[in-house]
Parts: sequence; C-alpha cells; structure tokens
Amino acid sequence: MVSAFKANAVVGQSGGPTGVINASLVGVIEEARKHPEIETLYGAIHAVVGMVKDEFIDLNKLSPETLEIVAASPSSAIGTSRDKPDEEYCEKILKIFEKRNIRYLFYIGGNDSANTAHILNTMADEMNFDIRAFHIPKTVDNDLLVTDHCPGYGTAAKFEACALMGDDLDNRALPGVKIDVIMGRHAGFLTAASVLGKERDDDGPHLIYLPERPVSMEKFVSDVAGVYENLGRCVVAASEGICDVDGVTWAKKLAAEAEIDAHGNVQLSGTGALADFLAGKVKAEIGPKKRVRADTFGYLQRSYPGIQSPVDADEARRCGTEAVKLAMEQDNGSVAIRRTGNGKNYSIELFRTELKNVAEKTKSMPDEFINAEGNGITNAFIEYAMPLVGELPKTEYLGNYPKV
Amino acid sequence: MVSAFKANAVVGQSGGPTGVINASLVGVIEEARKHPEIETLYGAIHAVVGMVKDEFIDLNKLSPETLEIVAASPSSAIGTSRDKPDEEYCEKILKIFEKRNIRYLFYIGGNDSANTAHILNTMADEMNFDIRAFHIPKTVDNDLLVTDHCPGYGTAAKFEACALMGDDLDNRALPGVKIDVIMGRHAGFLTAASVLGKERDDDGPHLIYLPERPVSMEKFVSDVAGVYENLGRCVVAASEGICDVDGVTWAKKLAAEAEIDAHGNVQLSGTGALADFLAGKVKAEIGPKKRVRADTFGYLQRSYPGIQSPVDADEARRCGTEAVKLAMEQDNGSVAIRRTGNGKNYSIELFRTELKNVAEKTKSMPDEFINAEGNGITNAFIEYAMPLVGELPKTEYLGNYPKV
Repeated sequence: MVSAFKANAVVGQSGGPTGVINASLVGVIEEARKHPEIETLYGAIHAVVGMVKDEFIDLNKLSPETLEIVAASPSSAIGTSRDKPDEEYCEKILKIFEKRNIRYLFYIGGNDSANTAHILNTMADEMNFDIRAFHIPKTVDNDLLVTDHCPGYGTAAKFEACALMGDDLDNRALPGVKIDVIMGRHAGFLTAASVLGKERDDDGPHLIYLPERPVSMEKFVSDVAGVYENLGRCVVAASEGICDVDGVTWAKKLAAEAEIDAHGNVQLSGTGALADFLAGKVKAEIGPKKRVRADTFGYLQRSYPGIQSPVDADEARRCGTEAVKLAMEQDNGSVAIRRTGNGKNYSIELFRTELKNVAEKTKSMPDEFINAEGNGITNAFIEYAMPLVGELPKTEYLGNYPKV
Repeated sequence: MVSAFKANAVVGQSGGPTGVINASLVGVIEEARKHPEIETLYGAIHAVVGMVKDEFIDLNKLSPETLEIVAASPSSAIGTSRDKPDEEYCEKILKIFEKRNIRYLFYIGGNDSANTAHILNTMADEMNFDIRAFHIPKTVDNDLLVTDHCPGYGTAAKFEACALMGDDLDNRALPGVKIDVIMGRHAGFLTAASVLGKERDDDGPHLIYLPERPVSMEKFVSDVAGVYENLGRCVVAASEGICDVDGVTWAKKLAAEAEIDAHGNVQLSGTGALADFLAGKVKAEIGPKKRVRADTFGYLQRSYPGIQSPVDADEARRCGTEAVKLAMEQDNGSVAIRRTGNGKNYSIELFRTELKNVAEKTKSMPDEFINAEGNGITNAFIEYAMPLVGELPKTEYLGNYPKV
C-alpha cells in the first residue's frame, strides 16, 4: 500500500460502447468526489484521442440528477476511440498529463485498454513521473481474462435473450427458418446468451453456432434442415465470427467469393452479408419456396436504450467506484469480479489484478459451456449467465394448445 | 341495429405480427365472456389456414393471469398467415363455420384482413348463412384508411425512436456515417418515427428517406456527404421501400444489378442487402477509409418483447373489446380510431366503419408530414406520432460539453 497524493485525475472510455459503460463512468465520478486527493476529474473526449489532443471536460460539476441520466444512457458519454497508442503516442499523452498535473488515470475498456493503461504506467515510471493507472473492465463480448464476467455483458446478453424470445414467437406465428447473426468475432458468450429466454421445450433458438466451434457448410445446412423437418420451423443464432473447419471465418470466405463473382461491383462487406449468405445456403438445401429469413442485429445489441440489466448496471458502477478506492492505496491495477454466490444467492466481490494479466489476451467460451456436437450450449452456461441478465419478460404462445 | 343471436365465435390474427396484436386478441376474449350470446370463442390457428383446415383452440378457459401474459407478449399468439383466400377458399371456411355454428368472426389484421372479412360476410349473405364479421385494425406500417392510426404502430414507432436514440449516441461516441434501414415498403410512418427520440439539436437521424419521396442516388450520397462534412458524422434513417426517381425501389434495382454481375451466385435478396448497398455508395463518395456502417433492423422492430407503448397496448385491447360490442348490434364493420384530443390532452374514441372502406387501399404519409426537400419530417408529424409511443428513456451525452 502506498499513500495517495493530491493531483488531478482523468477518466476515459475506450473501444466499443456498451449499455453500462456510463454507469462505470459515474461510479468513478461519484467516488472521486469523496477523495480530496483528487482535485479536478477530467473526462478525456474520445479516450486517448482527447488525451493526446489535450481535449478534456471537467466532470466535477455535474449534478446528481445528470449523473443518474448519464448512468442510464447507453454508449460512451464522453466519446470513445479505437486508437491503439504506440510509444510516441503515449509520450505525447504523458506530456499532457504533466502539463495538467494529471496523475490518476481511470480507463474503462477491454484488454487493449488495460494494455494502454499498463504502457502509460510503465513509461511514466521510466520518466520518474508517478502516475496511478487503473483499468475498469468493459466489453459486450465478455472476453476478458481474470474477471468472472465483464460489465456490459449482462445488458447485451439481456438484449440477445429478449431478441430471440420475440423472434422465436414471430417464427412460431409465421413458421420458417430464421437465422440471427449476433456480435462476437472471437468469443461466443453473446451468441450463447440467445438461449436465456427459452421458456418452452421447443422454443428457439434451436441451433447455436459459436466462433469456438468450426462448422462446415454441409453440417450447418444439414443441422438446419433436420430441425426444420422435425419442427416445421427452425431458429438459428449464429455468431458473426463462425468459421469453416479450416478455421477461416465464413464472413471472410464469402467476401472473397463475392469479389470474384461480382467483379468488385457488389458490396458484401457490410453487416448484413453473412446472414444473407447463410440464408441463401439454407434455401438452396430446403427449397426455394420455403420461408427463410435472416437478420443481423448490429449496433442495437450494444446501444438500445432503456433495457439495462440492473445487476450489470450496478456492477459496472461498483467497478468504477472500486478503481478510485484502489487508486488511493495502490500504484496500478485492473478491477476484476469474483463470483461468491450463484443462482438465487448470486453475489460478487471485487478485487485488484495486475494490468498485464488482463492486457495479454482474451478469453473464449470454456468447453463445459458448449454441447458435444458444437451446435448448442449447456446448462452450465445458463447457470453462469442467468444471474447477469436480471428478470426477463414472460411470454405466452397459444398456438400449440390442444385443438378442439 | 340488429339483435344478437346465440352462436359460437372465432377470432383470427392475420398478416405480420406486432407488439400489441395479442392485446387486441385479449380484448376480444374478455369482452366475449361478458356476452351470453357468444358460446364458445374459438381461436383459429394460423388465421384462415386454421379456419379452412378446421384447426381451432378453445379460448374460453384461459385464466386472467394467462390473458395478461398473452396481452403483453409480442407476435401473434394463435399463429398468423399471409394467405389471401379466394372464393373457393372462403367457401370451405364457411362450410367449417356452418359445421361448428360459428357465426361471429373477429379478424385482427391489415387491409387484406378487412377484405377477407368483407368477402366472407358477403358470401355468407349470398348463402343465407347469417354471420357477423368484424375487422380489428393492426399494422406496424400504420397504413390503414379511415382510422387515425393503427394499433401496433405506436409500439413499433417506440422501437424505432429508441433504436435511433441509442444508435445516435453510438455514432457520437464513434463518429462516422450510419445508415439504418427501417420496415415499411409503401408507407413511411415507421421510418419517420425514428425522429421521435431526438433530444438535442444535432441529434440524429439527420436525414430521413421515405417511400413517399423518390430520391436519386446522387442526391442521397450528396445529402449524406453534406451532413458528414458539417457535423463530422451522419445518421440516416431509410425506409426499405425507398425508390429512385423513376419510382422503382432501390431494393429491386440492386437485386437486378447483383443478379447480372454475380451470375446468380451471390445472394442479395436477404434483408441486409439494401443497407449494405447504400453504405457502399456513400463510401464511394466520401472515401474508402471513412467509417460507414449500416444496419437493417429486421424483425426486432415488430417482435422485441417488453417494450410495448402503454397507449398502444391499451388502444389495441379496446379495439378488440369494441369489435365484440359492435357485433352485438351490427352485422359487420371495422373498428376505427378517432382522435379527440392531442398533445397532453391526447384522447381517442372508437367508431365503426364499413369493411370495404378499410379493405380497398392503403394510406401513405400525408404531404404535411414530410419536409419540402423530401429528406426529413415536419413538426406536424411529431405532434401526430408522439402521443402514440408513450414515454421514452432520457439520455445524456457529455462529449460536447465545453472543453476545459
């Protein structure tokens, strides 16, 4: 433990927005106000871009009412960036920090953000400029190491669960094949969350494809055709990162194919292409007159307002608070979540881990969360994820009640 | 006014599902229970398909608790169909009605459904089989004649308003061009609703394209480039039904183009194609390194659970109730909504109109709802639509606060 010093602080939000990254921001703001060591708390506009361009706002004066609205708002309230600063970029940032006497850094983001905090902390040490750098976890992908789960995941998982509940009811009402493409290029946690709203035995999604389990196109279409023959309908949740058995993503293969076939005139790099491609393959298998539809959920997954998971929002805020508390006692670190109870007794505690533990790599779905055939998930996953999403709407479908 | 008789009744849900079509179903069920003239209330499984195949469930025994869950569930709880019955199909239905002594028909749907009810009523008259046929309005497109607005529209409009609120915040946080393609092949009401969540002067959507206003690709990309240059970002809401100046939809043009170029190998008939196509055209204009993204909202717009507009859900239920009340006194009709107060004093009353008034054609956005340039909407539309969506989430963005 090292004693704190009086200085200014900065908070930044990095990478893709989430539904609760602003709750973490508000946690930082609220806790910073309790510590006289922190004089001005700056918000870096667009993360490292604001830090390097010297563009900050003063977060000290926001009213409690405004803070509550911010905490409930999706997206990154002070702007974000996907820049990955190199050494030169970091040097510029540290010069700005020196100029403004910023010596506390709170950086909310994924593993790249933890890495940025780590680099800035290390470089400052070498310059004999003492800064305290803390990372606050955030991703919709839930792919950070060390922490049990990431703030941002629960709310996005709730979105997927609700989306598939509604889409499955839609598919019951107008039967056919429906394919939903879900965010998550490398980790399947979000796609897996599509099952969390299942209420009836034959509810969809009936098939789930994750980046962790390569699938041939033959297997994919034969799985879908099988469910369709059996139930008269089939709802599929597929990650945008699904790949062929050779490990190359289907998105990449289809882009290459389109370029050759269409001589570059057809745009297939957009978000809808994979879903349409998969729908086309299924249609070719089960017949052109069968109803096959596909949706790509896109940015709604991370920015739809008004549907925060209360657990997720609360934990995100606590992680922000915890980072400031840690900064009063430690030189650096990343906030992580430890699960201390599950199911109805779900509870967590927060702890500090080293920045480099989080910065180094990302996590995939563990094997015990995926079924043997690689096209569905297990109860172990449901037990893991269910407490994070909070209560889901109840729905009813009458069309399969006994006929009279 | 004609006196009622003792007989069985049937209710069906037709066409695309909505977020509140089940509230109308529950309105019918609840009111039917109050009238001893209605003996068994059947639910036709998959609308006319169930009527012609003699597939019904008994709606008399559902508990009040179940009815509340049904009323809150999106999609069509007894299944739906897109079949348009011809004379032979209707004859078969009427034979089933005779066999089961079904002499009250409640049909929830759009203009095609009103037409089906009209045909069945007329054919039954010719057969001297007295049935009473009532249409209950439902569309997300809001395109029915006579009624001020359609149940189903308010909830879908709320979805669009929220979606664009979140997407605009996302676009502020990570600036670029974002194009959102919204349901509504012929009427722009849903796309127009994308503006209802605007809180700040420079909030998106900044441009809105409707089926009612043809737009050349040159005008479209130059509009987008103009906003992008001005604000450093641009959020666009485009109807799936937008068309070129010759009246041919861009979706159709792009499908034709793709077929020629790709020799049939590239699937462009799916839902994501138009959005990707528009994004490609914008990228070609503003530069390949600029961030341009596109989403197609798809079925989430009509089936996302848990986000009903309370006004819409209430009105949908009242329309179901009203149809049953009318059936006790009239031979046929369609339920319509008259607005009797607006703004804070918003109120409605229900009235009966002739089936053929609703069956004949559809409604588009009136001219006074669209701006002169054809790329935005007017305050008159906001005043019309705002009472229908109910309260929207409040959000805050701090990134444009004064820099320090």
